[in-house]
Amino acid sequence: MTTHSRTSSESRFDKGTRALAEIDGQAGQNVIDALADIAPDFARLLIEFPFGDIYTRPGLGLREREIATIAALTALGHCAPQLKVHIHAGLNVGLSRAEITEIIMQMAIYSGFPTALNGLFAAKEVFAAHGSAR
Amino acid sequence: MTTHSRTSSESRFDKGTRALAEIDGQAGQNVIDALADIAPDFARLLIEFPFGDIYTRPGLGLREREIATIAALTALGHCAPQLKVHIHAGLNVGLSRAEITEIIMQMAIYSGFPTALNGLFAAKEVFAAHGSAR
Amino acid sequence: MTTHSRTSSESRFDKGTRALAEIDGQAGQNVIDALADIAPDFARLLIEFPFGDIYTRPGLGLREREIATIAALTALGHCAPQLKVHIHAGLNVGLSRAEITEIIMQMAIYSGFPTALNGLFAAKEVFAAHGSAR
Amino acid sequence: MTTHSRTSSESRFDKGTRALAEIDGQAGQNVIDALADIAPDFARLLIEFPFGDIYTRPGLGLREREIATIAALTALGHCAPQLKVHIHAGLNVGLSRAEITEIIMQMAIYSGFPTALNGLFAAKEVFAAHGSAR
Amino acid sequence: MTTHSRTSSESRFDKGTRALAEIDGQAGQNVIDALADIAPDFARLLIEFPFGDIYTRPGLGLREREIATIAALTALGHCAPQLKVHIHAGLNVGLSRAEITEIIMQMAIYSGFPTALNGLFAAKEVFAAHGSAR
Amino acid sequence: MTTHSRTSSESRFDKGTRALAEIDGQAGQNVIDALADIAPDFARLLIEFPFGDIYTRPGLGLREREIATIAALTALGHCAPQLKVHIHAGLNVGLSRAEITEIIMQMAIYSGFPTALNGLFAAKEVFAAHGSAR
Repeated sequence: MTTHSRTSSESRFDKGTRALAEIDGQAGQNVIDALADIAPDFARLLIEFPFGDIYTRPGLGLREREIATIAALTALGHCAPQLKVHIHAGLNVGLSRAEITEIIMQMAIYSGFPTALNGLFAAKEVFAAHGSAR
Repeated sequence: MTTHSRTSSESRFDKGTRALAEIDGQAGQNVIDALADIAPDFARLLIEFPFGDIYTRPGLGLREREIATIAALTALGHCAPQLKVHIHAGLNVGLSRAEITEIIMQMAIYSGFPTALNGLFAAKEVFAAHGSAR
Repeated sequence: MTTHSRTSSESRFDKGTRALAEIDGQAGQNVIDALADIAPDFARLLIEFPFGDIYTRPGLGLREREIATIAALTALGHCAPQLKVHIHAGLNVGLSRAEITEIIMQMAIYSGFPTALNGLFAAKEVFAAHGSAR
Repeated sequence: MTTHSRTSSESRFDKGTRALAEIDGQAGQNVIDALADIAPDFARLLIEFPFGDIYTRPGLGLREREIATIAALTALGHCAPQLKVHIHAGLNVGLSRAEITEIIMQMAIYSGFPTALNGLFAAKEVFAAHGSAR
Repeated sequence: MTTHSRTSSESRFDKGTRALAEIDGQAGQNVIDALADIAPDFARLLIEFPFGDIYTRPGLGLREREIATIAALTALGHCAPQLKVHIHAGLNVGLSRAEITEIIMQMAIYSGFPTALNGLFAAKEVFAAHGSAR
Repeated sequence: MTTHSRTSSESRFDKGTRALAEIDGQAGQNVIDALADIAPDFARLLIEFPFGDIYTRPGLGLREREIATIAALTALGHCAPQLKVHIHAGLNVGLSRAEITEIIMQMAIYSGFPTALNGLFAAKEVFAAHGSAR
């Protein structure tokens, strides 16, 4: 990443870094760290576009954004690691465990019971890691 | 549908019918009608399970449920007719055009730009059919 | 692998041509014809591998094979033209309209209600083109 | 689950419980048990809709229904745990190992060789757990 | 789009605009224009991220990038409009019709014959619109 | 269709065996071996169709074919084992680590960031197994 491209993207990178920390917390930072020795530019793009450009837009709250993301990742069915990060993120931005469970259950209608089941088991794992209740 | 099974599922069917009317309005009824001569039992199941069982659960509001559904159908990418019905439904339960547009744009992150583009063009069509602004 | 199945690729083409005609009838031939000016080799491969190699294997009947294919194409959700060809094929190899409808309805469990709905509407179209009877 | 909703869904729940036991056996019960502390209502819905409503319908035999399910779960490619449960179920309702292998191989045509390969390796695992031959 | 965000993203937007014109030509501009009255910010993001950030990276040529994109869009199977734009783009950056046909045929292995067939028919349409020659 | 390509299925098997060895090396042979006791015919079909029929066609080089395959398997998102085999194959036919990384990063545009992330982590694993640099 050249000084030049750093300069021109600084505010997106900074905004994205703050948003990533607020939303995904340590789980998000772990993804960034894991990219360091394979594709550091992708770590930067991941901070700049999803977090710097999209999650910081004013038209929709973070709670709503995480509802959308948890629903989509459950429905897609092939992104278990990212679904877990965003179940975590959902808790961080104020969704209750019961609400997250409802969102995932609802996906049985749209992408089938297997995706909902796998989503619920992902949630069970994340909730357990999060400690007792909420 | 035997009298017996009718009796036992009556409240689910009635609850589902009310929920379908509230959420999907005429667009939902059109789907039910189109099933009449090919799979009338599926019309009943569609009312009973998604609408009678899921959408009427107390743990999540209809606004939140439509955010989840619009996100998932955009991300799946192969359900244009159902996405249009639920963009419609989103407007019915209080989402603004701008909020629906934000949800769909966000899917570029999770399922790619083509699904977001196709979702936005579906929204454009539904918004046009809905008449001037909101 | 039997000596028989090992013979020449000519017999695969001939076996495949017969299987395609028996299973997909005119709808299959239309696909082959449509490939003539864009990818004639692909028309040959389509006859040789799916029809010459797979559908002619002895371990499973054509009726069972079409149940599997109709289920899969409904669930995948992005192959409407091929699903219609195989609903047609299902009727050709002895599945009733009611059985085809059941298979498609069942997919609501595994790939969601939208794929089942779109499958049922595809069946409605094919059944209508097939004339009155069952 | 209120007494009221229990009453109205009792026959579906009972029918579904019997169907689940007959089809999926212990593997099905394990799924239900695993849901107990995360989403007990989803366990009930899973028994009532897929098993109580769909698998018990008279229009298609259990053998045919499992052909459809094994095909669809192989093709979807992102539901390995559920595919294994239903390969198990296929054996329970009378499909031979050779027939299950044929169904999965056929999916190479419709969803690609990787999904067929992963399906075959899932079958290998289930067959091994099932003990010697059949 | 505030003056501030404009300033910081200007070079990405300009780079992206040039890349979009070189790669997708008029077909790309049509997509941008169609977004103007539904999601103008998404038009900007589409220029900045895919074209400004990714396609202009030095590590891979445009010919290779279009091979990758045509393959992926064929395999995904639910993005016909975007696949057509990129078959067009493939021709623009130097792929021959025969090479594009080979890429799409190869997808039969990875995502199934239906996706390859639909990809070939998309190519047939784009080639016809492109006029006689090769 | 040339006389040459029409010869016997034996030459397809032999051609396919050579192509498999050249492209996938030991990783490909491991897949063939793993199929021996579950579906030996599928091992033969896997050699004959993808490798004997497709990869040996003259219209596209192996380097281009692996770009297409790595892109598609990353985008599909549910074929991690096969993606790893083909990242390996990409190195075998002359793609650099940096080029493979670029292809996978580009998929963020078409199938979303989660598929690109999972693809990059698959590459990281394969590169590590391949030893120091290239």
